[in-house]
Amino acid sequence: DIFTAITHHFQNTMLEQNLAGQHWVITAGPTMEAIDPVRYISNHSSGKMGYALATAAIARGASVTLISGPVQITAPVGVNLVAVKSADDMLTACEHAMQSQADVFIGAAAVADFKMKMASNQKMKKQSNTDEVQLTLVKNPDIIATLAQQKRAKIIVGFAAETQNVIEYAKSKLERKGLDIIIANDVSRSDIGFNQDENQVTVITTNKVWEPAKATKSELASQLVDFIHEHSQRSR
Amino acid sequence: DIFTAITHHFQNTMLEQNLAGQHWVITAGPTMEAIDPVRYISNHSSGKMGYALATAAIARGASVTLISGPVQITAPVGVNLVAVKSADDMLTACEHAMQSQADVFIGAAAVADFKMKMASNQKMKKQSNTDEVQLTLVKNPDIIATLAQQKRAKIIVGFAAETQNVIEYAKSKLERKGLDIIIANDVSRSDIGFNQDENQVTVITTNKVWEPAKATKSELASQLVDFIHEHSQRSR
Repeated sequence: DIFTAITHHFQNTMLEQNLAGQHWVITAGPTMEAIDPVRYISNHSSGKMGYALATAAIARGASVTLISGPVQITAPVGVNLVAVKSADDMLTACEHAMQSQADVFIGAAAVADFKMKMASNQKMKKQSNTDEVQLTLVKNPDIIATLAQQKRAKIIVGFAAETQNVIEYAKSKLERKGLDIIIANDVSRSDIGFNQDENQVTVITTNKVWEPAKATKSELASQLVDFIHEHSQRSR
Repeated sequence: DIFTAITHHFQNTMLEQNLAGQHWVITAGPTMEAIDPVRYISNHSSGKMGYALATAAIARGASVTLISGPVQITAPVGVNLVAVKSADDMLTACEHAMQSQADVFIGAAAVADFKMKMASNQKMKKQSNTDEVQLTLVKNPDIIATLAQQKRAKIIVGFAAETQNVIEYAKSKLERKGLDIIIANDVSRSDIGFNQDENQVTVITTNKVWEPAKATKSELASQLVDFIHEHSQRSR
């Protein structure tokens, strides 16, 4: 509502511009992998968390490139929005945005792990004599691991959406992919995460585990951006 | 805009209420078939054509049940909206809506031909030792053929979205599924159909082929509803 908008406006104008001169690159939303001209595989990511992180980074003075899969929300004012569909397109857009090393990369997109081995140029027809169909999927590029290996940003931040053993899986992902920070959440909980306005996460670095309180994605994004910035100052 | 809205308002209030007392059931949008708690298979149907048909039928006095997959558009005023996700849910909702025989059923939804043989209750994990994954899909129920066989409506109208041999495939579908009317369009054309505001179709009955001019989905829906009504009067 209007009061929230005014409050945010003054909060933002009063925020220290401590990210001025920095370039942050953030991915958001799902990816959409074509099966044929009309069908696709996607996931329920709303893009809200990535868009909230972009908003919070802009409010602190960063120049932000937001590389987004198909979502139903509006881009924050002042962002450089790059709209993509597939994981392949998203990786290309990330590499293009970070030809010069960025300060921070946050992979908040829910990138499809798999794409079709062969997407069809024509609509697949249902044959009356086939009761089952096999879709052969192959791995998508691991966007964040690729960018981390190429050192495309000074600080690389990943997300881990899990339904079980959340912290254990997230720690293993942090090490395996060479990330600086991983933000883990439990998507089996229906009150937070995918498509919800609130989120509760666990933030993990190589030597720290931090659990901020459950909060709106907007409030949480501010805390996460501050945490990432402080972490980057310490690791200089 | 406002002029269009006013024009439509007067057009509608001036329309003969020739469908008063009739029950039309219309499906719209894509279906969404779960792969696991976060991933799904869907298609690019916007739902615009089905929603436009519902609007046109309501404007002529029909009582309309609109059974819709996930879309981003608003239901027409006065409709009985039933929101569904999967094809199984859509069939159940159709049968429920037509426990008493409806006057007209229009299957405008882009129903997924296939669903997962076994949807997973947990998010599938990407195993580092597997480069390929097979998704085993099985046929969804053929909603319109099922409803036609059960004679759930006096007139059954289907759609055929094709990318090649459009009329030939549509005619074969009309006969095989026991439909009264089929509305065919060529989804390989990017200017019409899926996600576009305009559409151009070919209307096929057992003894007639009619090609109305390319038009907005709203204008076309009015012509199609009139055609369906006239056809139903003749076939009494």
